Amino acid sequence: MNRWLLPEDIADVLPAQARKVETLRRNILDLYQSYGYELVAPPILEFLDSLLTGTGSDLNLQTFKLVDQLSGRTLGLRADITPQVARIDAHLLNREGVTRLCYAGSVAHARTPVGSTAREELQLGAEIYGCVTWQADLEAITLLLKTLSLAGLDKVYLDLSHAGILNGILAKENLASIEMEALYGLLQSKDRPRLSVWAKSLPEQTAKALLALTELNGPCAEVLNKAKTALPQTPEVKEALAQLAHLIESASDLSKGLELSIDLADLRGYQYHSGVMFAAYIDKLPQPIARGGRYDQVGKAFGRARPATGFSLDLLTLASLSPHQKPKKAILAPWDNDAQLKQVIDSLRQAGEVVIQLNTGEPMQSAEYVCDRELVKQGGKWSVSQK
Amino acid sequence: MNRWLLPEDIADVLPAQARKVETLRRNILDLYQSYGYELVAPPILEFLDSLLTGTGSDLNLQTFKLVDQLSGRTLGLRADITPQVARIDAHLLNREGVTRLCYAGSVAHARTPVGSTAREELQLGAEIYGCVTWQADLEAITLLLKTLSLAGLDKVYLDLSHAGILNGILAKENLASIEMEALYGLLQSKDRPRLSVWAKSLPEQTAKALLALTELNGPCAEVLNKAKTALPQTPEVKEALAQLAHLIESASDLSKGLELSIDLADLRGYQYHSGVMFAAYIDKLPQPIARGGRYDQVGKAFGRARPATGFSLDLLTLASLSPHQKPKKAILAPWDNDAQLKQVIDSLRQAGEVVIQLNTGEPMQSAEYVCDRELVKQGGKWSVSQK
Repeated sequence: MNRWLLPEDIADVLPAQARKVETLRRNILDLYQSYGYELVAPPILEFLDSLLTGTGSDLNLQTFKLVDQLSGRTLGLRADITPQVARIDAHLLNREGVTRLCYAGSVAHARTPVGSTAREELQLGAEIYGCVTWQADLEAITLLLKTLSLAGLDKVYLDLSHAGILNGILAKENLASIEMEALYGLLQSKDRPRLSVWAKSLPEQTAKALLALTELNGPCAEVLNKAKTALPQTPEVKEALAQLAHLIESASDLSKGLELSIDLADLRGYQYHSGVMFAAYIDKLPQPIARGGRYDQVGKAFGRARPATGFSLDLLTLASLSPHQKPKKAILAPWDNDAQLKQVIDSLRQAGEVVIQLNTGEPMQSAEYVCDRELVKQGGKWSVSQK
Repeated sequence: MNRWLLPEDIADVLPAQARKVETLRRNILDLYQSYGYELVAPPILEFLDSLLTGTGSDLNLQTFKLVDQLSGRTLGLRADITPQVARIDAHLLNREGVTRLCYAGSVAHARTPVGSTAREELQLGAEIYGCVTWQADLEAITLLLKTLSLAGLDKVYLDLSHAGILNGILAKENLASIEMEALYGLLQSKDRPRLSVWAKSLPEQTAKALLALTELNGPCAEVLNKAKTALPQTPEVKEALAQLAHLIESASDLSKGLELSIDLADLRGYQYHSGVMFAAYIDKLPQPIARGGRYDQVGKAFGRARPATGFSLDLLTLASLSPHQKPKKAILAPWDNDAQLKQVIDSLRQAGEVVIQLNTGEPMQSAEYVCDRELVKQGGKWSVSQK
């Protein structure tokens, strides 16, 4: 990727790399199709209000704004496709039953996301609506692992969390959304000193539980055990821990390279999630390669609450981590007005060959193709010969 | 396409339709690959200056502007991918030889284009750089016809024009770009009364030639004949007419459903084109389904003039005109933690089947899939049975 003349952290995807992205895109969408996911393509621009419905202020800061000349209203260039897909499920499709949707499209970020060097992504994801049971969460995790595997990434660290735990701890407090955002930042960075100052105004048991969250991370069995004593066992916390335990049991044998762990303070996207949350890490990348979880409340903002779970990732990042593809073999042919040559070329192309026509003597360079053969006329007939 | 909550002329692509778009996208990109085109993916955002380099003021008016927080500079949301691809060829790849590039990506228009009802498009195109001869123009036209044929559109009206004709007529005049734009609008609308008023300040022979352009449209042989007497036979005009004649001869047997004609006043995109220009029309659509032509000068603005020719079209429009796809057949399966069931489902999916899992009794609706079979346990074994 070269950045000549381009804004900071915005890049072209050049030949060979773009083909790798395309191949991966097809393989992944075919995988989702085999699970019965329907493809949708929401627009890259919407009214800002719709784009931010049901989401937190992070997304607002991340969203490019522009003016719609036709309505005079503010539009947003999408920074996340998931809320758009929730809108489609809640309002447009308006189905009662289970709906599986998937998508792949461009998103842009006004600021470069932490740990990333790209403001434009090719977001790809899969979402299940209308299913309230843990099987849907397990299917999302299964598909995520298979997606990474298609890119050659089989060693995966999956960090689990649950939005219900913080909800349970804070059930009796009435925190304003601005306070919640400060709290969420402190938990995310596991900043214990500042967190304990911040929590002073809260009842002692609540403050203690919040501090405990920053240490509840590591191997699943150990963390689940610790959580039983370190956290107040409200019905919501108990339910969340039980759901995590159930999911861990079912997910543990999904793939050989999977390492499961828990991080109860990892609440990125907390404002929009409502249940199990997960982040997938791989070696070589400091930030998660994919994120997902349950967000049953987003549809409500569009007029219809629906159970929802799913995940998404950036296909450009995924492709950059997947193995190099070999250039495709091609056949060189002259640009000749001979009817027989045209026929030979047509049938070679139909048989799956790449045939590249050039004027005699014209040079050809390509990152995607290697011409190892050429069409030559021998004894009045065109035939393929090694170069 | 439903417009609930969406800005004017912006729409979601919903299930079934999105799959049709995806299938067509793959078939078309595979076709381009068989001709040796390399795939590229320029970003959706760039500095406005780069996006508008070498193009006319139409594109400026069509481009959404936004502010880059990181640089304070104005960005454009692309309304056309072709100039981006010319930038990649001229500067990034920097090859001496022939380069074939193709692309498929989202573009947005600040105003709804005339004759259209969509401000967002999925622009798809193919471009050849570095080849100065007519064979490259013929390859562009060939690929365009094959692209339309993949969408089931075999009856095509191809209108040819040539930027060299207007250049030849005006070679001795020194018109400012604002005057050129007025002229181009008058020619486009074939507004003879206003054109003759506008041309009063020009030499009589030039004014006469401009008026003649508005009538030089129709069957190829007839128009080429008329042009020989109605237009001044400057070297540039002669060369342009000879190129058109050559291309028409070679293109006439490209496909059975092709009807060729000439419209020498059709100069849309004139500021960026430099040679043969073409627009493809089909029944059912008042505006062209695709446009293309030669634009040898665009690369120059990026530091390196390169012969260039190609075409592009909107894949969403193309898909909406192509025949309906039948829903894919699928197999319903219960969500059961049975290891044998999992195996059966896995092997069905690997064999290309769609298997959709549901909790027993949960309803399922889908526009893309029809469940005509289900997995049931009979005598201790899971097998597929008709529903």
